[in-house]
Amino acid sequence: MIALLGASGYIGQAFTVELERRGKRFIALARGEVDYTNFDALLTFLRRTQATFLINAAGYTGNPNVDACELARADTLLGNVALPQTIAQACRIAAIPWGHVSSGCIYSGAKVLSESNGRVVKNMMIDSVRAMVEARSPSIRGFTEEDEPNFTFRNPPCSFYSGSKALAEEIVGRFSNCYIWRLRIPFDQYDHPRNYISKLLRYSKAYDNVNSISHRGDFVRSCVDLWEIEAPYGIYNITNPGYISTREVVDLIRTKLNPARDFDFWESDEHFYREAAKTARSNCIMDSSKLLSSGVQIRPVRKALEDALNNWATVVR
Amino acid sequence: MIALLGASGYIGQAFTVELERRGKRFIALARGEVDYTNFDALLTFLRRTQATFLINAAGYTGNPNVDACELARADTLLGNVALPQTIAQACRIAAIPWGHVSSGCIYSGAKVLSESNGRVVKNMMIDSVRAMVEARSPSIRGFTEEDEPNFTFRNPPCSFYSGSKALAEEIVGRFSNCYIWRLRIPFDQYDHPRNYISKLLRYSKAYDNVNSISHRGDFVRSCVDLWEIEAPYGIYNITNPGYISTREVVDLIRTKLNPARDFDFWESDEHFYREAAKTARSNCIMDSSKLLSSGVQIRPVRKALEDALNNWATVVR
Repeated sequence: MIALLGASGYIGQAFTVELERRGKRFIALARGEVDYTNFDALLTFLRRTQATFLINAAGYTGNPNVDACELARADTLLGNVALPQTIAQACRIAAIPWGHVSSGCIYSGAKVLSESNGRVVKNMMIDSVRAMVEARSPSIRGFTEEDEPNFTFRNPPCSFYSGSKALAEEIVGRFSNCYIWRLRIPFDQYDHPRNYISKLLRYSKAYDNVNSISHRGDFVRSCVDLWEIEAPYGIYNITNPGYISTREVVDLIRTKLNPARDFDFWESDEHFYREAAKTARSNCIMDSSKLLSSGVQIRPVRKALEDALNNWATVVR
Repeated sequence: MIALLGASGYIGQAFTVELERRGKRFIALARGEVDYTNFDALLTFLRRTQATFLINAAGYTGNPNVDACELARADTLLGNVALPQTIAQACRIAAIPWGHVSSGCIYSGAKVLSESNGRVVKNMMIDSVRAMVEARSPSIRGFTEEDEPNFTFRNPPCSFYSGSKALAEEIVGRFSNCYIWRLRIPFDQYDHPRNYISKLLRYSKAYDNVNSISHRGDFVRSCVDLWEIEAPYGIYNITNPGYISTREVVDLIRTKLNPARDFDFWESDEHFYREAAKTARSNCIMDSSKLLSSGVQIRPVRKALEDALNNWATVVR
């Protein structure tokens, strides 16, 4: 039996669908019934149900966006740091493995191969880097699981949200029976306030940058696959291979959805941060080769995006 | 056997002295030998040594002062939030009670009795409040353990340090076998960078405000007393009864130590924050009547301060 935490959230819902599709026995813990933030309650639940695996899709992401975490610091830390630690320690005592939904937003920028060693560029808006990214230069590389996160409390600046997620990885990473699944900017065919496509359709202006992103269905499928194929515990970047610019996504939206609006972009980082955002945003390129090497299959980013747009449904689920 | 965490710190050292004085068997855990931030290692240690009580005097206070916590956010959260939670959960599994050194700095200001209900005044620099405080008005009251902390992430502004300490209380307070001992501005007769008297002797200018403060020896004695007399678990304000202004402390220092320097004060909060401090400071009056009602004896603040100055020793211990 699998215990699923955060089942009502955007990622938790997708886990529910995926576990049902696979015919897996699972219990979606509702906090009203079992307060899983309470160590005793969680441990008692895990023992009573003889859970064999736990999925933590609960967390505090901020509403409507990460800016909210700058103010809701207690809830951000309780949801993203204290809860994962409680889960890690309860799973340790119950002797069961588990998986934690983390985030790639603990990185900023990309790596640029120069001579022999990869140099880290934190700001992809720099013209030279941007040109290389847009030209799909083979010198541009994503961050691997070995790279130290660079958009964290230890490597400021960072958003409070990113800081909390990185701190959780530091804590949870010390436990040997845990998957750390890194999601980045989820999207799929279902309109939803957290869907990247929906966001771009609703923003008055888009923030032009380059990112690795995660198809929501592909993400949860990969998470469960890793567990099922008994891949080694540890960190996995779970983004659709490759990267894509906001302009490319917008071009695809224009072509596929033909929306009755035009799209406009913030002229510069300066404009964006002055007008639309309170805290720094992570934009980054991730390397998903560890996931692929482990034997899990996941579509390239453009393929996943085209598929989402080809099947675009405005039904909120 | 008592397990003492943070024995090398300023408060931990005093616990060492107090436990030795009482002839208590204890082990001061050195992080180099037992990494008590590691849940497994701590739990194994507690079981192996059959510990009957744990004292957590470890934490991250910032060096030279709390301003450092604003930058060292990861270490502040690991030391002041993640560690207490790990201890709480390990002590729960080991089924032993424990005590946590918390801080009164999660409050700002004082309470003013107006008609029937106590109004909270956050800034004691306000002239009307200041006058009442200096006149020892019976309408001025300290915060009790029932009062919600008001200098926290949930009630900003606060310092990052205070935010972390309040969050720890929120987490640890859910465990039923735990003392939360609130310290405020420690001092005693031994010169030390964390001793309030030493600080006042070294500051170029002093920040004039009013506080409840804790004699270090009285504090640890009270903590151990609470456990020994089997007082109910929960929060205790452990400050010497009463409150004192910086000017009064400085006057006492002048009289008792006759130092070869003059003392100067920041003209205003504005000056202090512009010139000498990065983050907001907590200044507050605490009510220690719960401690006294429990049967623990502790000297009034002026008595404890005079005693420290009468026995002033410049030997660092």
